[in-house]
Amino acid sequence: MNPGDRVRVERADETYEGVLLPSTTPDNLVVKLDGGYNVGIDRDQSDVEVLESEVYDIEDEESDDSSVVEFDPDLPTISLISTGGTIASTVDYRTGAVTAQFDAKDVLRAVPDLAGRANYRGRVVANILSENMTPDVWRELAQAVYDEIANGADGVVVMHGTDTMQFSASALSFMLDTPVPVVFTGSQRSADRPSSDNVMNAVCSVEAAKADCAEVLVCMHASESDDTCALHRGTRVRKNHTSRRDAFETIGAEPLGEVDYDAEEVTFRREYDERGTQELALADDLESDVELLKFTPGMGVEALDYADGKAGLVLEGTGLGHVHSDWVDRIGELVDDGTTVVMTSQCLGGRVCDRVYDTGRDLLDAGIIEGEDMLPGTAKVKLMWSLANSDDPATTMQEPIAGEITERSVPWE
Amino acid sequence: MNPGDRVRVERADETYEGVLLPSTTPDNLVVKLDGGYNVGIDRDQSDVEVLESEVYDIEDEESDDSSVVEFDPDLPTISLISTGGTIASTVDYRTGAVTAQFDAKDVLRAVPDLAGRANYRGRVVANILSENMTPDVWRELAQAVYDEIANGADGVVVMHGTDTMQFSASALSFMLDTPVPVVFTGSQRSADRPSSDNVMNAVCSVEAAKADCAEVLVCMHASESDDTCALHRGTRVRKNHTSRRDAFETIGAEPLGEVDYDAEEVTFRREYDERGTQELALADDLESDVELLKFTPGMGVEALDYADGKAGLVLEGTGLGHVHSDWVDRIGELVDDGTTVVMTSQCLGGRVCDRVYDTGRDLLDAGIIEGEDMLPGTAKVKLMWSLANSDDPATTMQEPIAGEITERSVPWE
Repeated sequence: MNPGDRVRVERADETYEGVLLPSTTPDNLVVKLDGGYNVGIDRDQSDVEVLESEVYDIEDEESDDSSVVEFDPDLPTISLISTGGTIASTVDYRTGAVTAQFDAKDVLRAVPDLAGRANYRGRVVANILSENMTPDVWRELAQAVYDEIANGADGVVVMHGTDTMQFSASALSFMLDTPVPVVFTGSQRSADRPSSDNVMNAVCSVEAAKADCAEVLVCMHASESDDTCALHRGTRVRKNHTSRRDAFETIGAEPLGEVDYDAEEVTFRREYDERGTQELALADDLESDVELLKFTPGMGVEALDYADGKAGLVLEGTGLGHVHSDWVDRIGELVDDGTTVVMTSQCLGGRVCDRVYDTGRDLLDAGIIEGEDMLPGTAKVKLMWSLANSDDPATTMQEPIAGEITERSVPWE
Repeated sequence: MNPGDRVRVERADETYEGVLLPSTTPDNLVVKLDGGYNVGIDRDQSDVEVLESEVYDIEDEESDDSSVVEFDPDLPTISLISTGGTIASTVDYRTGAVTAQFDAKDVLRAVPDLAGRANYRGRVVANILSENMTPDVWRELAQAVYDEIANGADGVVVMHGTDTMQFSASALSFMLDTPVPVVFTGSQRSADRPSSDNVMNAVCSVEAAKADCAEVLVCMHASESDDTCALHRGTRVRKNHTSRRDAFETIGAEPLGEVDYDAEEVTFRREYDERGTQELALADDLESDVELLKFTPGMGVEALDYADGKAGLVLEGTGLGHVHSDWVDRIGELVDDGTTVVMTSQCLGGRVCDRVYDTGRDLLDAGIIEGEDMLPGTAKVKLMWSLANSDDPATTMQEPIAGEITERSVPWE
């Protein structure tokens, strides 16, 4: 058997049928299934039957550097921007694990289901695992998205590692006024695993990027089933599970909308900005000297020394927005020295309110800013942005800019 | 009208009928309703009618320091331990806000519904807002609970502020082997508010403390309705909302059980330790030189300097358990210098697995311990306990002691 052969592989009660691809490890068979999925199968104890020889010219495809999809003037143009992560990765033959090594064109080639939905432009901004994402890369990414839209893209899909996707989506929500959808997507399971979510997430993201919307969204599996992706507002979403494909959840509300995979339909459930309702604009300055500190019992006040002299500090307090009383004076000193200190809650749900208990009122007296119901990570990104773009960061932090603060529904929420 | 009068108060379409209590603020009327709730009503625009004078001798009750409930040999004995917080608080007349000032006997007096359910013993361990809780107070609390059980209590209810209740419940879960239920409860709304949850939570906690169970539990509203309290295992519970009465949730599973308020019935849904299955024992040493650090994008490696020389460090990483690659060498230095470093995930749901991606494997090589699916706060408390009580803390951290680590259900969860 050779790469390009059509094969049937049987192993451990499972049967796979498709085209054999070049394998990156000697222990592994990689088969492109008819649905477009690439499956990695342990060669050991696999029973392989060649159904047809050389149905597919692998060499030819690999040397082909023209666009995978020809331009169709009747279709919208979607820009795919890759930053790295599992969705743009394959198995690293050196170590047997996943490492980022695809560019956008490779992703397109890996997902035949994307054909016919749009004209595509590909662009690589970074090739990093998302735990290595930094404010500098957010700025490069925002500039790239801005350029793509300015150059006529009808929507943008950003492929991103899932670890810090919510932070990057928040960053672009604040830095960019967009007239078209900017859709972040990623993958919780790599493409060589049968349970990979990369094809459906990529397809649904392209559908979302074509939709009548002008927001920064995160598009990921809505449940463990392969039928629907949820559309989350970039500033309200959180990765709430280490491994589930439906790890991403909107905090404090239903997702903004959803994409039906089979029906190729995008539906919005809540109020959202429609396509074209705002002009394209970029405000990409960030004050990166901002830190987030989570308070837990037993944490000494000396933990605050790390924040000494910083431009901004987001505290992730307990309950309605508290820390140990011993911290109050030190926080007051930081504020007096010019650090903008914002209080959020590790509860994640609900609103900070420091007017109810003694500790909270003392914190307000010390000069903290209540972070309303912003997620702590979103508040950190927004503080970076506010300190660099607002004349009055304290006020800006308490006003909704990109859906990061929800209106009060009942007095205590 | 005078305190002790039976009154009807009408204000803004609401009617309240009960006994007028001494008010702590001039602007407020406090009425004890027939169900046992104390309601605070704004005196402004209130229409008050005295139905009967002096039905209740307030002076007499206030000077009465005998037990509220007479001993009944047919009832179990429940020990109520107060640590402070909203459930043991009233309105502070100086500032108009809530501050802790009750002892256990006051709570009993404030909740007539507790009568007839048990014989009670009251004890005050602390009188602090729970953001001020420390490992030293956990030790005092564990000793007090131990003493109460050793002295014949058939169950213990710990009244605690909600901000850090999950940390204290975790601490007692590790420090104490208990043959009877130890039930933490609190209140998200103070007793002077019509929506207070303190009566139902107190009553349900006493019912839970009488149940056939031998675990450390958290008993709080299961929904916004006043019908059921959920019983959460102390090591798996989290305050997930700043203000909702049903803020507490078990992460990654259904609650262990529930208490039906009206039916006075306790039901367990999952496997649990039955009353008497373990001997009473106390291992209350804690290594308090342990910190938790949450990693977010943009956080400099110098944040780790704070952990330099510490006995233990819990990292709250991204996704499967990652931090920026730049941190790996510094973490290796901490480990080499004798700091035990445990990795958890800010996802909260799911298990840490550092064998999938490059960063994770590098972290394992640097010497971190994977924290399985432990909640980060629980892992911090457990590390304090393990360093003081285990010859092999690294192994102890990966073995379930008090339900803090769940069995793997599917390979990727």
